[in-house]
Amino acid sequence: MVRKPLVSIVSAGLSKFGKRKEMYSREMFAEAVTEAFERCPNLEPKRDIEALIVGHMGESYEHQGHTGPTLSDWAGLLPIPATRIESACASSGVALRCGIFAVLSGMHDVVMVGGVEKMTHRTTSDATEFLAMASDFPFEQWHGMTFPGLYALIATAHMHKYGTTEEQMAMVAVKNHRHGTLNPKAHMQKEITLEKALSSRLIAWPLKLYDCSLITDGASCLILTKPELARKFTDTPVHIIGSEQASDAIGLYEREEFTTLKAAKLAARETYRMAKVESKDVDVAEVHDCFTIAEIVAYEDLGFCKPGEGGSLMEKGATAIEGELPVNTSGGLKSKGHPVGATGTAQAYEIYLQLTGQAERRQVEDAEIGLTHNVGGSGASAAVHLYRRE
Amino acid sequence: MVRKPLVSIVSAGLSKFGKRKEMYSREMFAEAVTEAFERCPNLEPKRDIEALIVGHMGESYEHQGHTGPTLSDWAGLLPIPATRIESACASSGVALRCGIFAVLSGMHDVVMVGGVEKMTHRTTSDATEFLAMASDFPFEQWHGMTFPGLYALIATAHMHKYGTTEEQMAMVAVKNHRHGTLNPKAHMQKEITLEKALSSRLIAWPLKLYDCSLITDGASCLILTKPELARKFTDTPVHIIGSEQASDAIGLYEREEFTTLKAAKLAARETYRMAKVESKDVDVAEVHDCFTIAEIVAYEDLGFCKPGEGGSLMEKGATAIEGELPVNTSGGLKSKGHPVGATGTAQAYEIYLQLTGQAERRQVEDAEIGLTHNVGGSGASAAVHLYRRE
Repeated sequence: MVRKPLVSIVSAGLSKFGKRKEMYSREMFAEAVTEAFERCPNLEPKRDIEALIVGHMGESYEHQGHTGPTLSDWAGLLPIPATRIESACASSGVALRCGIFAVLSGMHDVVMVGGVEKMTHRTTSDATEFLAMASDFPFEQWHGMTFPGLYALIATAHMHKYGTTEEQMAMVAVKNHRHGTLNPKAHMQKEITLEKALSSRLIAWPLKLYDCSLITDGASCLILTKPELARKFTDTPVHIIGSEQASDAIGLYEREEFTTLKAAKLAARETYRMAKVESKDVDVAEVHDCFTIAEIVAYEDLGFCKPGEGGSLMEKGATAIEGELPVNTSGGLKSKGHPVGATGTAQAYEIYLQLTGQAERRQVEDAEIGLTHNVGGSGASAAVHLYRRE
Repeated sequence: MVRKPLVSIVSAGLSKFGKRKEMYSREMFAEAVTEAFERCPNLEPKRDIEALIVGHMGESYEHQGHTGPTLSDWAGLLPIPATRIESACASSGVALRCGIFAVLSGMHDVVMVGGVEKMTHRTTSDATEFLAMASDFPFEQWHGMTFPGLYALIATAHMHKYGTTEEQMAMVAVKNHRHGTLNPKAHMQKEITLEKALSSRLIAWPLKLYDCSLITDGASCLILTKPELARKFTDTPVHIIGSEQASDAIGLYEREEFTTLKAAKLAARETYRMAKVESKDVDVAEVHDCFTIAEIVAYEDLGFCKPGEGGSLMEKGATAIEGELPVNTSGGLKSKGHPVGATGTAQAYEIYLQLTGQAERRQVEDAEIGLTHNVGGSGASAAVHLYRRE
């Protein structure tokens, strides 16, 4: 018997992901918020929303910090408390968790959580540098290490220890690109072949261009409330039944192992325990495929297979949309795109659509239990959430 | 009758504030954490601390984001959830509020909140630019506006509307510098005269050098728990009885008035209401004197006097340490220093010392109710907390 809900999601919004030219973060966020309000006509924003908690990773992209009031101002939500969370690429997964705290605390009944990032107006070199701020400055960045480099170390360790292959990693890209074509809001809208992925240019061996997620602009949001109030706003709430977060050493060099993200594994274990469900109960999952190897490691850390078997799980097709456990039906970070601060609540948005039967061409039939897995940096932060439909 | 506590502070720590050469944020934060642990021998850090929530304003100073796990790693607190909050100069006041949520939510029993900033290794020009990220990029920063400029607009509006004088502002500086000499951890340790303050070089008229707070390095932390668990850790807990946060338009140009910070006024009103106390009940307060005019406006927004009377309240000496309502006994941002991310919980640290009789040469006798007022940017964020001793 799964546990009673912590909080309920009564609406959700997502901006179009992609290159959003001449849009500021605040404008994209307002786009996501508008969708969330339109889905939920019973909700009166100025009356009902009591706090805003948003994930935003980098103030350097737009030379803009103080993101909380900037976004709440443009979303028409002043003067409620508006807070920015930064946990690297897990910023909005962690913002979601803080929103859960805010509701459970009894201090707020209805809270908006979300996230945003505007990245594509900067050069790839700038974006790579800003992203690298999520790794250790004195011991990683200083020596020229970048995120493709860090995940390449994870990939080579996984290949060495378990025999994972470049082909298996490329299959993740092929799968997620295919899923992305089913999602009109995804950044990429094209299928790729295994050959194309494998022959794309090297970024950091063994990772090639198609092993890397996209630099994307986008925003996402959710509206949370107490389970007992959810019916006031919607007939189809989605309940959050588990929420955990954990941390690991900021530097990859400090980790005991490269082949698993300990923080994600720990957060997953505790989330399953809190929700009283097991990995086999999960019907649909959005996992943090910032690089293809990260999705393979996620399968293992989430208990979808044993350690070392992530590559073969992919190869068997189990995680494709028609498989036993569809993963990243949205296209994932790989094809939907990875506007870093927006990713955590964008994953939750996809699960919200799936569990309310609104995922259209990518709908997973009878999905009842969903999971999101959001990772910051090379695994120094992770937030895992479990959801169930009404 | 004041309300029952929301949560209790069972320990607190503060690094030395000042120019901390060759120290990283993580090292200063560990210094603050060490003090907090030493004050509280009954607490077993690895066993008891369940989450870390820290304020950190700018990733640009040290080219380091992902501050949560970076700090928790160096503080020996892995693998607990570690989250960074950014609300400009109100970052750790807001982190404190999120820590209160975490405890009230029932998901964590003991939580560390805190903040940190390392600023002095950068040029003044860099620091000015990084601080400006808390203002509006397209409509303020882009046009060359800086924080001294924004607060100069607030000062001139206040002078125009209420007759506030440059002398009254300078008196805030003189008072807080005197208080700073009583605080061995303050950055500045020297008294100044009114003449010295008034004749210091212009930064943005009417604000002169001594009207501006300091660019400082420092870290602060508090340990929070449920009131019913506080006695397990200390005989002298300090209870938080009110916590509110509010937002206003990010840009000063959008505000209805320049002479008051609406977010701070609203947060104060709601905090008093929550705590069931009135402004006249406050025995000691730490307010956000990022510029001297900000302290004068704070007196008015907090109800210590009527609108327009902040200057004369200062002139009467009411807010000096020997006055009726001592404000900024720590020296304030003006003399203790303003390591932006650390300021909110550093204010709470001072109130903790005052309410537990540990403030030594600056002890306010019989202080029972304390208040902190922490402002982000030119007032787009504000967090106000009320405290009472056991």
